[in-house]
Amino acid sequence: MQQYFRITGTGGYLPHQVITAAELDARLGLEPGWTLRHTGVATRHQRAPGETATDMARHAALAAIAAAGLTLRDIDAIVDASTCQQQPIPSNAALLHEALGPEVRGAAALDVHATCLSFVVALATANGWFASGLYRHVLIVSSETPLDGVNWFDPASACLMGEGAAAAVLTRVSAPVGECNYGYETFGEHAHVCEVAGGGHRLPAFAFNAENAARYRFFMDGPKLHKIASRHLPPLVARILAEARVDLAALHVIPHQASGPAVELLARRLGIAREQLHVGLAEHGNLVAAGIPYALHTARGQIPAGSRVLMVGTAAGYSQAAFVFTL
Amino acid sequence: MQQYFRITGTGGYLPHQVITAAELDARLGLEPGWTLRHTGVATRHQRAPGETATDMARHAALAAIAAAGLTLRDIDAIVDASTCQQQPIPSNAALLHEALGPEVRGAAALDVHATCLSFVVALATANGWFASGLYRHVLIVSSETPLDGVNWFDPASACLMGEGAAAAVLTRVSAPVGECNYGYETFGEHAHVCEVAGGGHRLPAFAFNAENAARYRFFMDGPKLHKIASRHLPPLVARILAEARVDLAALHVIPHQASGPAVELLARRLGIAREQLHVGLAEHGNLVAAGIPYALHTARGQIPAGSRVLMVGTAAGYSQAAFVFTL
Repeated sequence: MQQYFRITGTGGYLPHQVITAAELDARLGLEPGWTLRHTGVATRHQRAPGETATDMARHAALAAIAAAGLTLRDIDAIVDASTCQQQPIPSNAALLHEALGPEVRGAAALDVHATCLSFVVALATANGWFASGLYRHVLIVSSETPLDGVNWFDPASACLMGEGAAAAVLTRVSAPVGECNYGYETFGEHAHVCEVAGGGHRLPAFAFNAENAARYRFFMDGPKLHKIASRHLPPLVARILAEARVDLAALHVIPHQASGPAVELLARRLGIAREQLHVGLAEHGNLVAAGIPYALHTARGQIPAGSRVLMVGTAAGYSQAAFVFTL
Repeated sequence: MQQYFRITGTGGYLPHQVITAAELDARLGLEPGWTLRHTGVATRHQRAPGETATDMARHAALAAIAAAGLTLRDIDAIVDASTCQQQPIPSNAALLHEALGPEVRGAAALDVHATCLSFVVALATANGWFASGLYRHVLIVSSETPLDGVNWFDPASACLMGEGAAAAVLTRVSAPVGECNYGYETFGEHAHVCEVAGGGHRLPAFAFNAENAARYRFFMDGPKLHKIASRHLPPLVARILAEARVDLAALHVIPHQASGPAVELLARRLGIAREQLHVGLAEHGNLVAAGIPYALHTARGQIPAGSRVLMVGTAAGYSQAAFVFTL
């Protein structure tokens, strides 16, 4: 498909409180070095009491809009592409809209939810809107607060997570930039390999009790996910690279950063060199859907404009995506 | 913008158990006739114990795919456009994907969340995907289980709600059908006029207790919403009709069916004649985001193909939409 957007601004925000791997080892009674060795995460950030995902989203959004040389009044649509939902009604995007104030009055607000791949799916969605003639500037924000929901009895997943937000402004171009190539696939037979079962309608807040408490926490069968991704992701990436008529070696790669081992596995299976990879996992942990746009934000200074980028990764669902586009 | 889709199939599903207005009057100790008079809802449906929103979504989806003369293997993307979330992770669409089975393996699954207007926003989103060259057949499903979350101490909102699901298959056309005209606007300063505050990260399941229980239930300040809609919706509709160069009288109108009084107000403010309106509220109540596609499904037999349709309504956010397209 044609690429109808340029990324004209990005922003990122990590809350100020830092938790180190050594602190987690001590807190959870793990042998010293366990967290760093098993997760690849040296530090992560946690928001202050009372600080919400919407506050973090606002910081990242304002930074992205300023970087684009725009003002809030220029934004036509606000897409929240996060996994963590602030409240069931209204959407995260409406709450961010409220926080951004009267200058965005009338701008569309909606959520796109594809767990860890929400930002990538939102990019392709905005590209479609632009193709159809809708909107000029679209703001996409992912803001994640996973430390609310981790299961501290499962260090393998709990010690991975970090909090933060990232945003990008997409601007419609008058003539397509060139081809971009997008694949997003779901395999629902693995819907429960990674999940938070409780908190929605199936197992509501009303039903929460001491016995089922763990079901309201994040669950991930990491080894099984690795197996599924090893099998399904390489063919998708190969297809997208073939469609893009580009060698992997020519691309900057922004992967979903689930964990150190997951990023290593991805690089090994796909044959991605270390210097191509834009990864900040060691500093901030798994930021859920905010991981990819946060890496985009930090990488943007290092990647020359006009470079081609591959965003790639997996999500609960099980879903996987590969997106090649021009920065 | 150009219209790149045809609606090639629709489906609807209402669960079998029927609750009448008289039964609600009795259950809530209201004076006989109160529920019907205040809500316009004579009957509503409630799902059987153990029946989930995913089950209902599956019924509606299969009906829509059959009506389109397609099979599950033809579906490229599954969009869940519902307000009620089944569980925080994965998306509703991934759970539906799982329920639809191996024939949809690899089809994209994601949620588009704009509360009661989710289906309308998903239509415009699919139109964009088609414009950019993505996908051939997109399934959009709204499935709502609001009776889990109503506040029975607030009859004005509790007696409105009903459960059900509706789906549509959109098929990309090789040449645009013609112009379609879409406006979707949010006014975040009214984000809390209609909300469910508890159940997400701001007020999590863990924090549920006897004192804050009502905050986990649906809240709507109906009179205030009516005022906001009266002020903001007519200018949006006027703009979309002007862009579409069409008289309102020439359109079939599918409104969001919040309540009897809300539909009457909408018709009066916008000047919509009763015979133009496709409304099933009396039979099934406010189906949340499923209301518009359910009305589309029931109207489809009565509206000649090629007719122009206006979908119009409001949602929590506060958001509002108007979409003129060709059926």
